[in-house]
Amino acid sequence: MRRFATEKVKKLILGSFLSTRSPAPSSQLCSSSAAAAASAMGPTQSPPVTFDSINPKVLKCEYAVRGEIVSHAQRLQQELQTKPGSRPFDEILYCNIGNPQSLGQQPITFFREVLALCDHPSILDKSETHALFSADAIARAWQILDLIPGRAGGAYSHSQGIKGLRDAIAAGIAARDGFPANADDIFLTDGASPAVHMMMQLLIRSEKDGILCPIPQYPLYSASIALHGGSLVPYYLNEATGWGLEVSEVKKQLEDARSKGIAVRAIAVINPGNPTGQVLAEENQREIVEFCKKEGLVLLADEVYQENIYVDNKKFNSFKKIARSMGYGEKDISLVSFQSVSKGYHGECGKRGGYMEVTGFSADVREQIYKVASVNLCSNISGQILASLVMNPPKVGDESYESFIAEKNGILSSLARRAKALEDAFNSLEGVTCNKAEGAMYLFPRLHLPQKAIEAAKAANVAPDAFYARRLLDATGIVVVPGSGFGQVPGTWHFRCTILPQEDKIPAIISRLKAFHESFMEEFHD
Amino acid sequence: MRRFATEKVKKLILGSFLSTRSPAPSSQLCSSSAAAAASAMGPTQSPPVTFDSINPKVLKCEYAVRGEIVSHAQRLQQELQTKPGSRPFDEILYCNIGNPQSLGQQPITFFREVLALCDHPSILDKSETHALFSADAIARAWQILDLIPGRAGGAYSHSQGIKGLRDAIAAGIAARDGFPANADDIFLTDGASPAVHMMMQLLIRSEKDGILCPIPQYPLYSASIALHGGSLVPYYLNEATGWGLEVSEVKKQLEDARSKGIAVRAIAVINPGNPTGQVLAEENQREIVEFCKKEGLVLLADEVYQENIYVDNKKFNSFKKIARSMGYGEKDISLVSFQSVSKGYHGECGKRGGYMEVTGFSADVREQIYKVASVNLCSNISGQILASLVMNPPKVGDESYESFIAEKNGILSSLARRAKALEDAFNSLEGVTCNKAEGAMYLFPRLHLPQKAIEAAKAANVAPDAFYARRLLDATGIVVVPGSGFGQVPGTWHFRCTILPQEDKIPAIISRLKAFHESFMEEFHD
Repeated sequence: MRRFATEKVKKLILGSFLSTRSPAPSSQLCSSSAAAAASAMGPTQSPPVTFDSINPKVLKCEYAVRGEIVSHAQRLQQELQTKPGSRPFDEILYCNIGNPQSLGQQPITFFREVLALCDHPSILDKSETHALFSADAIARAWQILDLIPGRAGGAYSHSQGIKGLRDAIAAGIAARDGFPANADDIFLTDGASPAVHMMMQLLIRSEKDGILCPIPQYPLYSASIALHGGSLVPYYLNEATGWGLEVSEVKKQLEDARSKGIAVRAIAVINPGNPTGQVLAEENQREIVEFCKKEGLVLLADEVYQENIYVDNKKFNSFKKIARSMGYGEKDISLVSFQSVSKGYHGECGKRGGYMEVTGFSADVREQIYKVASVNLCSNISGQILASLVMNPPKVGDESYESFIAEKNGILSSLARRAKALEDAFNSLEGVTCNKAEGAMYLFPRLHLPQKAIEAAKAANVAPDAFYARRLLDATGIVVVPGSGFGQVPGTWHFRCTILPQEDKIPAIISRLKAFHESFMEEFHD
Repeated sequence: MRRFATEKVKKLILGSFLSTRSPAPSSQLCSSSAAAAASAMGPTQSPPVTFDSINPKVLKCEYAVRGEIVSHAQRLQQELQTKPGSRPFDEILYCNIGNPQSLGQQPITFFREVLALCDHPSILDKSETHALFSADAIARAWQILDLIPGRAGGAYSHSQGIKGLRDAIAAGIAARDGFPANADDIFLTDGASPAVHMMMQLLIRSEKDGILCPIPQYPLYSASIALHGGSLVPYYLNEATGWGLEVSEVKKQLEDARSKGIAVRAIAVINPGNPTGQVLAEENQREIVEFCKKEGLVLLADEVYQENIYVDNKKFNSFKKIARSMGYGEKDISLVSFQSVSKGYHGECGKRGGYMEVTGFSADVREQIYKVASVNLCSNISGQILASLVMNPPKVGDESYESFIAEKNGILSSLARRAKALEDAFNSLEGVTCNKAEGAMYLFPRLHLPQKAIEAAKAANVAPDAFYARRLLDATGIVVVPGSGFGQVPGTWHFRCTILPQEDKIPAIISRLKAFHESFMEEFHD
């Protein structure tokens, strides 16, 4: 179905949806303009909504992280339940998506205590509650409830989020950066994705508007640009220098797009990188800020992995901190920073909490962003609370501090070990090279495939990396996402693999990977 | 700023944004195409994002429920905090939005117990927990956790929502309707709004695609159609027959739109009505279903107020039940039913839970809806759980059943009394007529204003109903939304007022309303 779909998309993109075949009443496939004509002709047995009569922007959008390979994995999982032992593995390992708790990571106790107490405040003053919850969680829940008008945690909030929670987040940003932050700049959202959509909706007027995106990129960006009808302007990260972001390459692509009449409105920068795992150096970030200022680009800074750093020689710097340290303020650069509760050490993906910090926009533009936010009323309050906890966790002296730090460091140090173990394993495979994961949650190894494998993929009418990923899944139950879902230099092949399986499973995963890879290379050896 | 903005929008809509003034480098107001030209010309001190260079669809979108009157109310609220006694009232009463818990409505205990336990499952097997939580809440929390793969309530779920929760919702729908429902048809969403956006995104290809909407309508529909670049095709509800939905009127508007070359793709029906409060009769619903089938329209059924019925002679029937009872199945009609946890007797607006039940679409179209849902990964898990609780509440024999029913009936019977009291009060006012609120949470009284008041409004450059609402707010602190925000027959004036203030406050509200109205009529008497 998907391949069929994709071909139809190509036809649509090629404009065949503007053809005017006259509709047969029974036809399920009359073209959209024919449908329009039919509808416009007056009462008729109009066709229902068909593949060919839905919004072509929707057809154009792709999101590989939950694409065909995952659908196949879900089928295999059902098969394992109904026919145990029918496959050479007994479980599916979802390494396709940064979803830590789905692979056994435990939530941070303090965060969940506070969320539970805010969900059911009537137990706050019961004596038994003190036996079940830490004192500082109880105190924090009271503090948070007092920030909510009427303590009504079940009410719609201000469309940017509860003011007191935005104050806490702004204070957390200021403490992180050493520069002031303003609650009025914070828009709380159901995870980072809706925030990215909101900015694309604001910036994109037509296919003549372009957004610079790294290649490889997290496909939320390509999907959102497609849904809003804009043009993705790619800039390639340099794999040879550890996925380096080179401003000379960005400039070249910007000029090329402008020469084609594209109004390039913004640049998306993902730091730490997804799927590429690099952490930008401060000097590199300064160049990017300077470039955005000079070229009048909005800087869309995806900083959702800011807590996920695994190497001693790198640290996270927000683009706002960098810009302010260069002396650039509100009037100098338009900057949006995206943050999420789904990532970091907490990995609370299911809570759908996040925010964007919007700086350097005029009051009348800000009013329009607020208006778009207000149409959906507000983001979920538990996610809002969690976002404030992430930016304002327990402090030294709080009852939960020691256990909180132990949980946090335990997770982050384990992730660092898993990243290194998997990186080494990939690099030990014939024809595989893999850059270090300095941060984020992914490795993006490159596959140097034998010609026979590439021909076999062509014969199967799939990309070579999709062919490899499918074979890997069928042989081991390990789900990875083909590089083609993120974009890559034409003729190179990669896949994205998370570092999230629990640590005790890593050795078994590595041996399964190695065994599969050796037999794959054996099968397709030139 | 807003009026300034609105004028700019008119200019934009009139196409002046297609003019090609050459940009002065310092200009903050160069037109979008000029900006494009500037950007396309190559490296230049490009303008930042300005009001004139953002997506005109965003500018066109309006959402009165959180519009200018609410901003003014928030300013007054701050003034009351800093200067108590500075106004003839001591609190702002937000009757602009269906947000029950913001006005003191208490959440349903059982629902909050289950949510708290699912947020912090590690207390489930502690002995103290049995002293704090009802036994069936503990049992339900275990049941729900067992429905979540790996009991990972903090993980992203399937993009349609957790399968086991969708099963519970489907069972609830089947029990409600007496016809089967399928978990694969359920898409769980962060409230109903994102579900409506998803369908608009799917259906609208250009301004030549139209969506039939009731007038008056809930402005989510006009806002979403504007954001997605479609055309709103209005059909007027008949105020004289209690906001009757007459298919003859819909047919007239449909044919008129088609004669203008608009491909009308769907009809939105809000039942019970928002802002109009009518509950459709079964026979009327049958006509609508028949009409949609004959004309090949998708039926977008906004059924979020299905629990909010206040009169004995009306009951809620889902459009799916009506269609199935007419013998129409999957192949006969494309139907989407929207439901939310924000409304009903629970009013859990802040939880952002909801779903759409999608029936009568082909597999390849469904696959596209799933793809769009997957780009945002999933809706928040607490909202998903709450949606399953709303559709599957405590049953006879459960420990919580008696208290649950007492809470539920207490809220609904009080809402019915408040609706009647406010309806009678409005009808007792000179020059005001108000239809009964048979359901939902609103009254939509009509204002027959003296000519002098209309002239005063014109002089103030606002609509007469906005003028009245502003005066009402300044005199009483009561926030209502002018009818112009919902649409109304030209030359008629209304406002929407929720029935949600706590019952003990209603008498005082009514006397404030009466006193204001009398002085207003006195001031502007012809």
